[in-house]
Amino acid sequence: MFRSLVEVDTPALIIREEVAHRNIDRFQKHCDYNSLKLRPHVKTHKCVHFAKAQIAAGAVGITCQKIGEAEVMADGGIDDILIAYNILGDDKLGRLRSLAERTKALSVVADNDVVLGGLSRAFETASQPLKVLVECDTGGRRCGVQTPRGAIALARSISAHPGLGFGGFMTYPAIGGQRDVLGFMKRARAGVEECGIACPEVSSGGSPDMWHAHTHDGTVTEYRAGTYVFNDRSLMERATCSLEDCAGRIVATVVSVPSESRAIIDAGSKILTTDLLGLAGFGHLVGHPQARITDLSEEHGIVQCGPEDRFEVGEQVNIIPNHICVVTNMLDHAWLERKGGEMSVLTIDARGKLT
Amino acid sequence: MFRSLVEVDTPALIIREEVAHRNIDRFQKHCDYNSLKLRPHVKTHKCVHFAKAQIAAGAVGITCQKIGEAEVMADGGIDDILIAYNILGDDKLGRLRSLAERTKALSVVADNDVVLGGLSRAFETASQPLKVLVECDTGGRRCGVQTPRGAIALARSISAHPGLGFGGFMTYPAIGGQRDVLGFMKRARAGVEECGIACPEVSSGGSPDMWHAHTHDGTVTEYRAGTYVFNDRSLMERATCSLEDCAGRIVATVVSVPSESRAIIDAGSKILTTDLLGLAGFGHLVGHPQARITDLSEEHGIVQCGPEDRFEVGEQVNIIPNHICVVTNMLDHAWLERKGGEMSVLTIDARGKLT
Repeated sequence: MFRSLVEVDTPALIIREEVAHRNIDRFQKHCDYNSLKLRPHVKTHKCVHFAKAQIAAGAVGITCQKIGEAEVMADGGIDDILIAYNILGDDKLGRLRSLAERTKALSVVADNDVVLGGLSRAFETASQPLKVLVECDTGGRRCGVQTPRGAIALARSISAHPGLGFGGFMTYPAIGGQRDVLGFMKRARAGVEECGIACPEVSSGGSPDMWHAHTHDGTVTEYRAGTYVFNDRSLMERATCSLEDCAGRIVATVVSVPSESRAIIDAGSKILTTDLLGLAGFGHLVGHPQARITDLSEEHGIVQCGPEDRFEVGEQVNIIPNHICVVTNMLDHAWLERKGGEMSVLTIDARGKLT
Repeated sequence: MFRSLVEVDTPALIIREEVAHRNIDRFQKHCDYNSLKLRPHVKTHKCVHFAKAQIAAGAVGITCQKIGEAEVMADGGIDDILIAYNILGDDKLGRLRSLAERTKALSVVADNDVVLGGLSRAFETASQPLKVLVECDTGGRRCGVQTPRGAIALARSISAHPGLGFGGFMTYPAIGGQRDVLGFMKRARAGVEECGIACPEVSSGGSPDMWHAHTHDGTVTEYRAGTYVFNDRSLMERATCSLEDCAGRIVATVVSVPSESRAIIDAGSKILTTDLLGLAGFGHLVGHPQARITDLSEEHGIVQCGPEDRFEVGEQVNIIPNHICVVTNMLDHAWLERKGGEMSVLTIDARGKLT
């Protein structure tokens, strides 16, 4: 399944294009079949190349977390963007206004009135109102209004603010928490409709629960998933995907075998990151089921060998990272492996866009 | 101590230049007083600006981990560089040879004969032999020969390889493991000297033990430290430095206060990273001793508030990161805060240099 790639200097990230496209198509078909709009989160690939592939497959638009990501995607020709983040501060608001002027459809989220105040000041003179969705905390315990009552109040506040238009409700549920989404959103939607406000969209998300995205009796209208495009060890371990569905792998070189039980690879936290996502070890070593990456420093991965593992200095190994989204953020470039094995440079266009 | 910096768009890393220079001078004086050569590791700052400041203060040269870092530093005018890594592969060996031709003093380490073979092939036609130090595992359990006997054998092997010259012994000890360094290195040095091979250098390192760097009865000749230039929460917690010695802080904005006990900041793992270094929580929130950054996603930091913490949406907070070296690797730019408060852009020249 994985060729030996002596021509690739290590450590490096390789993306198998065919697998990524298969992942895109498969989940798009699932959404289409279930009449669910798909709005992929670009945080996983951060590449205009793959955002365009997602749109071409049928996605309604994309999701970004930061204005900087959205700017890069707009530069690349994507014109329907949700920025799923509370945006604050004059600098960001000015950029948001400029971005709105050069995209067909731009929307954001908010979970409090301070954010609404800033958005309204920035857009009260705009030619089109900015669509704002109310972020709801349905158990994920991150951002979001805490109750349907709070969601209804904020939706009414959006409608009352000059320059803004209510775009619906949005949530990033806890893993396995789609059932909680249903009750919260139904009450919120009913509440705003009673006030005579239309609720255009109910947006949920998360790759771990993607294959249950449709089990909402029509309440959820739009789904945001990011990781599904490449998949990773965290989704493999949850049985959301298989090893064959993992489009991204890190190629590393064994640089030292200090003892029979330990090998050192040149992939450390500068490419694998220390994200565990609840797993043990810092990645899945393909073809070495007994070996464990037990520790990382910045440029070293410490591999604890199983009794049958024999690693040789200079040998290349393939690793499925725990969390692929944070890996792409470490790299300005990855390798794109075409079907026939041909390699080309893949620029991670929106790497490190923090603001 | 920390000004409110409404002009800085968040999240951002701010380096206080005066504090960094004080850190550089203080440890240089400690090394000078104890007749210890200081060879700072640039992995912490990754900036030519600070490497030059370290050299100007009296450092003999710099340490890098990757050729890409060394290339950036050589481009910036640094001409005495140790690359403390096993270098393998034609691509890297070609770059190493080129680098040697444009630096005054370049050295590397090795812990096995496969690496020596590659280095020798690359340098057998060079005008000057490449200086190679033997990396020794004195308890750090990363790379390194396992015994003084193994170190002596590899030193002899270096001397026997065309194009190479033995440069001494190098180790990155376990924290608190400087005592182990002493016994290992004394036996290794005595062994090579018995073979008629001079041992020019014994190099140890690590910021956590930096204030004990001199307690080696002259065995250790050179010390490599990285983190000391900026310091971080991990060194604060070990009492290696105080809060006032931390030159680097992350400025973040409170974007949401969903409940009395929880606030959300716009610094997530894309700037703080998930490195814990054995600590609880993902950074020290300055001025909020009861608050804890209990969880991170890529763009969100989850703050658990203490009973007296009141956070407001839009407020800026300052965070001392757990591990400053990995933070600089996330960013193309940071802010350099001059003594009078003036801010200038600091380019992280060697960010993301993985090969």
